[in-house]
Amino acid sequence: MSNLTINADRLLGRIQELGGIGRDAQGRLVRVAASDMDKLGRDRLVGWLEEAGLEVAIDRIGNIFGIWKTGANESQAPVMLGSHIDTVIDAGIYDGCYGVLAGLEAIESLKEAGFAPARPLVVAAFTNEEGVRFSPDMMGSLVFAGGRDLEEALASVGTDGTVLGKELERIGYAGEHEPGFLKPHAYVELHVEQGPVLEREGIAVGAVENLQGISWQRITIDGEANHAGTTPMSMRRDAGVAAARVIGFLADRAGASSTRTVATVGTIAFEPNAINVIPSRATFTIDLRDPDEMHLREMEAALVAFLDKLAASAGVTVQAESLARFEPVTFDARIVSLIEDGARGAGPSCRRMTSGAGHDAQMIARVAPSAMIFVPSRGGISHSPAEFTAPDELVAGANILLDVAARLAAD
Amino acid sequence: MSNLTINADRLLGRIQELGGIGRDAQGRLVRVAASDMDKLGRDRLVGWLEEAGLEVAIDRIGNIFGIWKTGANESQAPVMLGSHIDTVIDAGIYDGCYGVLAGLEAIESLKEAGFAPARPLVVAAFTNEEGVRFSPDMMGSLVFAGGRDLEEALASVGTDGTVLGKELERIGYAGEHEPGFLKPHAYVELHVEQGPVLEREGIAVGAVENLQGISWQRITIDGEANHAGTTPMSMRRDAGVAAARVIGFLADRAGASSTRTVATVGTIAFEPNAINVIPSRATFTIDLRDPDEMHLREMEAALVAFLDKLAASAGVTVQAESLARFEPVTFDARIVSLIEDGARGAGPSCRRMTSGAGHDAQMIARVAPSAMIFVPSRGGISHSPAEFTAPDELVAGANILLDVAARLAAD
Repeated sequence: MSNLTINADRLLGRIQELGGIGRDAQGRLVRVAASDMDKLGRDRLVGWLEEAGLEVAIDRIGNIFGIWKTGANESQAPVMLGSHIDTVIDAGIYDGCYGVLAGLEAIESLKEAGFAPARPLVVAAFTNEEGVRFSPDMMGSLVFAGGRDLEEALASVGTDGTVLGKELERIGYAGEHEPGFLKPHAYVELHVEQGPVLEREGIAVGAVENLQGISWQRITIDGEANHAGTTPMSMRRDAGVAAARVIGFLADRAGASSTRTVATVGTIAFEPNAINVIPSRATFTIDLRDPDEMHLREMEAALVAFLDKLAASAGVTVQAESLARFEPVTFDARIVSLIEDGARGAGPSCRRMTSGAGHDAQMIARVAPSAMIFVPSRGGISHSPAEFTAPDELVAGANILLDVAARLAAD
Repeated sequence: MSNLTINADRLLGRIQELGGIGRDAQGRLVRVAASDMDKLGRDRLVGWLEEAGLEVAIDRIGNIFGIWKTGANESQAPVMLGSHIDTVIDAGIYDGCYGVLAGLEAIESLKEAGFAPARPLVVAAFTNEEGVRFSPDMMGSLVFAGGRDLEEALASVGTDGTVLGKELERIGYAGEHEPGFLKPHAYVELHVEQGPVLEREGIAVGAVENLQGISWQRITIDGEANHAGTTPMSMRRDAGVAAARVIGFLADRAGASSTRTVATVGTIAFEPNAINVIPSRATFTIDLRDPDEMHLREMEAALVAFLDKLAASAGVTVQAESLARFEPVTFDARIVSLIEDGARGAGPSCRRMTSGAGHDAQMIARVAPSAMIFVPSRGGISHSPAEFTAPDELVAGANILLDVAARLAAD
């Protein structure tokens, strides 16, 4: 199959075209899940699926499937390629859309080339991967994989007070299929890296072998407000200084560690937040990730120990609240090898890597062998109009997807 | 004069009565400068000045003076006792008001006792010491001392868009006297400590010999926003971590120093302030104070050096903007001694101390020998309804004020 390639112009043209659909008055890309803008993008995708001769199926959570099956293979579990086409607010054009359109492109090219797969091939666009309007993110794939009750998900209330189920009906994407009506033989998701590793190392393709575990916490430190001028340093219970100690500790430990743990404090607030008042309270969030559950737990335990010590030494009280906790996902070793083989065959450099972000693939991995392919993100930037991957990199990634899909479909 | 004492019941009653004037619908004390609530407090004070037989004079910045002069002493420079009666939002009842009402009480008691001063005695209530609505704080005394142009001060625009001069006219306190029309022979300000030192040491009275220098800065650190999951620790330019390093440095240096430098970071903000995004920007304020100008400068220089090193090592850019800078004030040695003598004569324990907060006395010290007397603040708390000083402590402080005023008026 290695002599088959995708239609590069068609793929690149569709990425640009879909990226132009769902812009607001300021020109921002805002195809937020189950919105009017999302409907415009979905309609265009469905049009392309139909043009490619695929059977279109929508499930009850709004996931869209384009199915290529033949009389000879329709009893087999399909090979699924997919991602999502909903976006954040003021998004780039590649995140998610690239994986869906490249999946379609791979299937369409195989079909046009007269390839005769032993299994059906399916491209999937999962509902609400971004989680901007309805929580949680990766909802469509989570429901598809049986990880969340359908009715509960449909009852989700959005940030704007709308109900997801009603919105899906309104935009015409409350389908009839039960989520999970397809049982994938394998799932492959092609995605922009959204991180700096591939660009920094000059490597064209990432064979994603696992996905980091995530631990999100909110920390609240209570000290004592006091006058900044009249309170000697030794008599202070400064919640802000205590927060700074935690931030420094996390950066030091994650920075010095031989593990791949990353730690981020992205939000913070002081109370009363006055220039001449010692903070009585500091509230901040912690985002810890590691591809190894044991290392993630070690970091969490080290944090607990540090917070205990800090509470005693700084005269503050510390509360920690878990906001989210996902164990790491290990992708299917055979598919990861097929990705490496595909890269080797076609020429681009390739490395095994970890996904730092969450993706639909982590949900589908619950029910089918899964893996991901990454291509470089310029400057590591994503969730921004500045998101960019060069055309030749997009094409190289899609050709590997085609290659892997063809091999899996021959199983 | 040491056998004269104030009328304790009258003083305590007036403190309570003034503290009940200018409450909002939630019961909060809100006599913010030049507001309708401030007018209510001013009107009550003027009533008491008139009842005491003092001549009431208002200057153009709204400072209120109650003057006791006789035909025999009217050509002499007066001894001035004073503070302010404007408050913060949700204030306690002692800050400022205690000094004004105790000044009135000392003069009224001397007058009633038939004391014959060689100099006039004046009680002053300075406009807008708190600086909540109009900036800067200590404005009335600063203008009185010639440290700020009158017209500029009257043109100050408040946080609510009002103009100070218009507001003073509106509430009837745009007086006719030029600020500085009185040239004090000496100035004494009695005030609650607003800090924990006296209570902690079990000492009744502070003879305030100096007032800390203040350096206020706003620091802006720019790094690079990036995905919290996909950006390795070694590739980050985390503005939030850099800010935490600064906060830790200040607490460490001020805490370990043998100087009396205090350092506070009271406000902070991250951008974009999202749980899963490395902060691109951190903005925070620094409040440095020391009674010794040299030590204050050393701290400022150490901060500059630290920020320079940080910018290089953390890959961030750092901007520092000065928001305010006052050199320390040394009060008049003779008045400080008189305060100590007064305490010794009357019995309460006394220690020399530094004022950590700014006060009108630091402005008047530009034009006349000045000093301050402190009494304990329960828990060091101020600018809060929880502000409290016990009645016997209030009375003891006022009696020392009377004693010192009488001695100075005999000059």
